[in-house]
Amino acid sequence: MSYYMSTMLSIPFPEAISRTEAALQKEGFGVLTSIDISQTLKKKIDVDFRPYVILGACNPNLAYEALKLESKVGAMLPCNVVVQQLDTGEIEVAATDPVASMQAIENPELKVAAAEVREKLSRVIADLSA
Amino acid sequence: MSYYMSTMLSIPFPEAISRTEAALQKEGFGVLTSIDISQTLKKKIDVDFRPYVILGACNPNLAYEALKLESKVGAMLPCNVVVQQLDTGEIEVAATDPVASMQAIENPELKVAAAEVREKLSRVIADLSA
Repeated sequence: MSYYMSTMLSIPFPEAISRTEAALQKEGFGVLTSIDISQTLKKKIDVDFRPYVILGACNPNLAYEALKLESKVGAMLPCNVVVQQLDTGEIEVAATDPVASMQAIENPELKVAAAEVREKLSRVIADLSA
Repeated sequence: MSYYMSTMLSIPFPEAISRTEAALQKEGFGVLTSIDISQTLKKKIDVDFRPYVILGACNPNLAYEALKLESKVGAMLPCNVVVQQLDTGEIEVAATDPVASMQAIENPELKVAAAEVREKLSRVIADLSA
């Protein structure tokens, strides 16, 4: 089982971020957090790293349902979407598969909810690929 | 396999947050993100939810190693620590077990790195319990 769904984009990095955010929004996901990994690694341990941003996406209605089903599901929230620039210059956008990340949680109802989130995130990736 | 390590605290919620942050710092984790779930759910979908904060903890050296081993490991980063107030008034602190959250990633070296992070997070929980 893969733990992500991904696509490649041949556009500038900042545009890839904004297109990903827009595609997420169309499926009801807000971006709650944005971690600039290259900036963080530079600042904390002075290493150079390729452009790499982790967007923390959250669909509030689905998150609320999940939290009611499993009190500590926040351990696996929000759903991350990694946007990174490869050595080739191309941008890879990879969304976590919540079914994979939550597979250690023994809760059948949550697995149904996670599959619903996966469907939405796969539409985000398909939208970016189009 | 449980997907978290946890402890209970009988202190005020804000103090639980600051004690958790301090315990994380002692093990080399910075807090990169902090999501106030109750505030977010109130704002986005107007529901009331108990005090519930997701801290995104990151040990930059270990994150860097993990990123070199697995380019899309950011899908599972940072390591979340959920701090929530239960109906009893007690505070539960639950740290993600990274071995559990990353179990879908087929990468033996990453599994070793994840076990090292689990050790550190289990010390954070032990420190809070002391």
